[in-house]
Amino acid sequence: MNYDVQTATSVLRRTPAVLDALLRDLPDDWTRPNEGGDSWSAYDIVGHLIHGERTDWLPRARMILDYGETRTFDRFDRLAQERESAGKSLPQLLDEFASVREGNISAIRALNLSPADLERRGSHPRFGAVTLSQLLATWVAHDLTHLHQISRVMAHQYRDAVGPWQVYLGVLQCAGHSE
Amino acid sequence: MNYDVQTATSVLRRTPAVLDALLRDLPDDWTRPNEGGDSWSAYDIVGHLIHGERTDWLPRARMILDYGETRTFDRFDRLAQERESAGKSLPQLLDEFASVREGNISAIRALNLSPADLERRGSHPRFGAVTLSQLLATWVAHDLTHLHQISRVMAHQYRDAVGPWQVYLGVLQCAGHSE
Repeated sequence: MNYDVQTATSVLRRTPAVLDALLRDLPDDWTRPNEGGDSWSAYDIVGHLIHGERTDWLPRARMILDYGETRTFDRFDRLAQERESAGKSLPQLLDEFASVREGNISAIRALNLSPADLERRGSHPRFGAVTLSQLLATWVAHDLTHLHQISRVMAHQYRDAVGPWQVYLGVLQCAGHSE
Repeated sequence: MNYDVQTATSVLRRTPAVLDALLRDLPDDWTRPNEGGDSWSAYDIVGHLIHGERTDWLPRARMILDYGETRTFDRFDRLAQERESAGKSLPQLLDEFASVREGNISAIRALNLSPADLERRGSHPRFGAVTLSQLLATWVAHDLTHLHQISRVMAHQYRDAVGPWQVYLGVLQCAGHSE
C-alpha cells in the first residue's frame, strides 16, 4: 500500500487509545519488567513513543519541507525516555502521549501535504536521501513495531508459566527486535 | 511470573477493548490484507480468537477439572474462523469477541480455582500431561501472540512505503510466527 495522510492517520490517531486499553491500571507485574538485560519494559516504551512525538517525526518532516537535503536530521536519542519519564507514573505517560500525538496529527493535517510534497527529500544520517512519505510511513510502522514489542515483553513474563505451549506461541519465538 | 487468576484476568479482560481501539472502523486496507499466501489478516485473527473462546480455553479447563488425564483434549481447529466468520463484518466480530470473552471470564472466576486445582493435570494430544495453570497462562499469552501478529500484519502493509527504515523496524524482521 502506498502512503497517504488519511490512511496513515487512521492508525496514528488510534494508538494512544490502544495503549490506554492495554496498559492503564494494569498491574505493575505486566508493565514494569522487561525481557532481561537493558531491554525495555512497556513503561519504557511509552516514554520512547512520547520522545518520538517531541523530537522525531514532526521536526524531521518540517526539516524536509524547509531545508530539503541541505540539513541532516539529528540522530534519534533511544535512551531519552529514561531521563524524561523519571518520576512519572504510567497513567501520566499515557495521558502525555495522547496529548502530544493529538497535537502532531493536527499539525500534519494543517500542512495540507500535496503528492509533490510527499516526494520531497531529506537527508538521514545513516540512509542518505529519504522522502517525506517514507518518513511519515515510518511514523505509523514505528507505532506498530512498539505495539508488537509491548505484546512480546508482556508475553515474556509468562514464558515459563505456559509450559510446553511455548512452542506454539509465535510471540515467544520472535527475534524481530528493533535495532 | 507464576500464573494466578487475578493477574491473568487483568490482561484477558482488556483484550476486546484493545482490539476495538485498534481495529473498529479502521479502513479495510489495514484489516483485510494478510502477509501473503494463506497467512491471516487482522479480520481472520479476530475470528480465530472467537473460536478459541468457544472451543478451547474453557472447555479444556472443564475437561481437566472433570476428567483429569483420562480424556485427551480435542484438537484445536485453526481454520474454523473461515467458516464461522463468513458474512460477518469486523465490527460484528469485535462485538462477538467482547461478549464471549466476558462470559468466559465470569465462568473462570465462578470456578473459584484453588492452588491445588491449578496443579491438576489434563492430557494434550501433542504434549501429554499439562497443568490447568499452564493452560490458563497460555490463554493470556495467546491473546498477546495474536496482538503481536496483528501489529505485524498491519506493518507488513507498509513494508515498501517505509523505504530504508525497514532495517530499523523490528516488526518487519519478525519471524516469530505461530505454528
